[in-house]
Amino acid sequence: MTQSTSLKLGIAGLGTVGASVIRQIQDNAGLLTDRTGRTIEIVAVSARDRHRDRGVDLTTYAFHDDARTLAQQDDIDVIVELIGGSEGIARDLVEQSLKSGKHVVTANKALLAHHGHQLATLADAANVGLAYEAAVAGGIPIVKALREGLAANNVRAVHGILNGTCNYILTKMRETGESFGEVLKEAQELGYAEADPTFDVEGIDAAHKLALLASMAFGTTPAFDAIHRVGISEVDSDDNAFAEELGYCIRLIGSAVMSDSGLEQSMLPCLVPLGSPFGSINGVTNAVILESDELGSVMLSGPGAGGDATASAVLSDVVDIARGRITPAFTKDTRQLVAPNLVSEHHGKYYLRLNVIDQAGMLAELSQVLKSWDISIQSLLQRGHNPGKSVPIVILTHDTTEKQMSGAIGALASIDGMVSTPRCLRVQHIV
Amino acid sequence: MTQSTSLKLGIAGLGTVGASVIRQIQDNAGLLTDRTGRTIEIVAVSARDRHRDRGVDLTTYAFHDDARTLAQQDDIDVIVELIGGSEGIARDLVEQSLKSGKHVVTANKALLAHHGHQLATLADAANVGLAYEAAVAGGIPIVKALREGLAANNVRAVHGILNGTCNYILTKMRETGESFGEVLKEAQELGYAEADPTFDVEGIDAAHKLALLASMAFGTTPAFDAIHRVGISEVDSDDNAFAEELGYCIRLIGSAVMSDSGLEQSMLPCLVPLGSPFGSINGVTNAVILESDELGSVMLSGPGAGGDATASAVLSDVVDIARGRITPAFTKDTRQLVAPNLVSEHHGKYYLRLNVIDQAGMLAELSQVLKSWDISIQSLLQRGHNPGKSVPIVILTHDTTEKQMSGAIGALASIDGMVSTPRCLRVQHIV
Repeated sequence: MTQSTSLKLGIAGLGTVGASVIRQIQDNAGLLTDRTGRTIEIVAVSARDRHRDRGVDLTTYAFHDDARTLAQQDDIDVIVELIGGSEGIARDLVEQSLKSGKHVVTANKALLAHHGHQLATLADAANVGLAYEAAVAGGIPIVKALREGLAANNVRAVHGILNGTCNYILTKMRETGESFGEVLKEAQELGYAEADPTFDVEGIDAAHKLALLASMAFGTTPAFDAIHRVGISEVDSDDNAFAEELGYCIRLIGSAVMSDSGLEQSMLPCLVPLGSPFGSINGVTNAVILESDELGSVMLSGPGAGGDATASAVLSDVVDIARGRITPAFTKDTRQLVAPNLVSEHHGKYYLRLNVIDQAGMLAELSQVLKSWDISIQSLLQRGHNPGKSVPIVILTHDTTEKQMSGAIGALASIDGMVSTPRCLRVQHIV
Repeated sequence: MTQSTSLKLGIAGLGTVGASVIRQIQDNAGLLTDRTGRTIEIVAVSARDRHRDRGVDLTTYAFHDDARTLAQQDDIDVIVELIGGSEGIARDLVEQSLKSGKHVVTANKALLAHHGHQLATLADAANVGLAYEAAVAGGIPIVKALREGLAANNVRAVHGILNGTCNYILTKMRETGESFGEVLKEAQELGYAEADPTFDVEGIDAAHKLALLASMAFGTTPAFDAIHRVGISEVDSDDNAFAEELGYCIRLIGSAVMSDSGLEQSMLPCLVPLGSPFGSINGVTNAVILESDELGSVMLSGPGAGGDATASAVLSDVVDIARGRITPAFTKDTRQLVAPNLVSEHHGKYYLRLNVIDQAGMLAELSQVLKSWDISIQSLLQRGHNPGKSVPIVILTHDTTEKQMSGAIGALASIDGMVSTPRCLRVQHIV
């Protein structure tokens, strides 16, 4: 197959990432040709507003008001979908493009987390690529590392800090002692958080990415709905202070672990040791740790968002396609993907914060409940002395199971003198 | 091109890595076929000792006493060279294999650092691959990240902790306060250091890797001899203690920085901030930070050595070849590689330790010398008070140039009361 002709792109969605993709193709044309032996040529673009100034010259490209018409344009080889959203125009465009035999490069994690299996099947049928390096951890080349760099490995677990907004908020809360609400407001003013932050702070965006990582790692169909997910809005400054005193910080950690019994997926605020790999990831940085049988643990970290970094990932996919390199979307032939056997059997240490009335015998009673669930205590912090009033007690457990912890928490909640619902966070010791 | 036939390997060198390559191919045959659509088949092997037990079954493979004869075996598609060394059999085998149209996968950084340009030219001429993921940072997929993941980027700098033995020794020295000699001895007993440790502790092995990273990053021919290199044998426990007091630890850092004026390469013990990405890399772990225009900074870290991890990298190259993916050895067409314009213009902070006679006016005199070289002091530590005897004075400078520091050190060395040669280390603040 000769590849000396140009590779023709249609770009849908001209936000920050789309504009940066266009600028990079314009600025780095020589570099891209050096590395592919071909010209990368933009032939058409689409966006809602034809007239907005995006800082790049669009005059030589065909402009479509409806992105879906790009799928019908015969001279386009690759559709770059940067519209976003799991339904609507983005989904229509990707489906129609794959069906008409065009490669698709997308940064759309929501679309793939919900419809990835169906879309990968379309891509296989048309023998075209469905590439999404930019959808997971922004510019970090994690898809390439996982699908190609670890090609000879059985992956055991994938862990990630996958949302820059959450990590920024948690880092800032720790540094300043401010509340979630205060830091969120600042993040919104700085443009690090959306006006409606739900998608980020509730871990939905990060869970989309985790579902894709798990699918690539384990050869299973994406199972977004099965992710045990808790956002960061309930992390409070007391938890941060106690965590620090115990030698930890709080991070929103996504984990997908494959064991003999099945796949466990979670996206939860967790305690990670200060100075550990994840404990050293601050601000908007993302990081992914891959644990596999032959290679052991590797970590990749870097900018998880930002127009230029994300566009860099989009273009690494375009370069692969220009080189004729099509990797199955979820690592192996889509027909071989199996639905994961989903399990919930986490075991490890837990952090427990209890607000109780400071009264005689309280500690003995708490200890007795934990003992009855066979949970042993590694550390215990009691702060303040305020007889008859509420005081916090913080407990770090030895290894136990989620089931035992749930049982114990249920029992603790009904203790006389328990002022509020016990607060429980996993402690993650990830190499 | 159909790829349904098997890919046939000849493996030369059956040490830890070679034995693990064979075991992984035997154990993970199904996985490899899933990911490539082909069978990966070993047809012949070579080693000095035909009878040693390597823990893997070799009985179905042809055995060659002279590895060079593998290059002549017609049914081999890929030679996996794991003999090592920049000359002799390894070089002969790789040259002859490329000339006879076989792909080569190698872990041999010395060979490539010295003869990479010539060998890449042979590979281009024969239209075969010369792949070496395992040669740089062991199992970490850094070659793939750099050549493919950052394909749309102009790389500005590559920094690395590239030798596990050195990082282990430096980590241990910091933890225990022991001397270089003591920790080296322990490392030798544990098998983390060779009986003759020169290659590792003098930074030669790490510099081989840096030369390859620089070549891939900047499209320049490897320039190993031009790396400004200092080993870790002169790092002493006092330096460790002072560094820590200033908020740093000492690591052997390789840096290749491309500026408008040219390429600067160094492999030096440096101070890096505690808690920074490199300051968090402990023990035998390797790490590489890539700084580029579009993506910003990404770091990859993981096992830089070990049979299984290194073999995993060898197999990722084999998988690429099985998929028909050949990337030019140094990222772009070898004919386009240019000899780098080598410069020496480092600027940054420096750590300076001076052993001086504790006498009146000494500090004033030291300060005067630094001032005369336009170097300003950020921190100064003076420990002990011992009139008429030697005391250490430690200075952390503000940003200055290597040229100014060299001048100042020359002047300081000749001060009356200077007991030993001033000790100077770069301080590296790498994002």
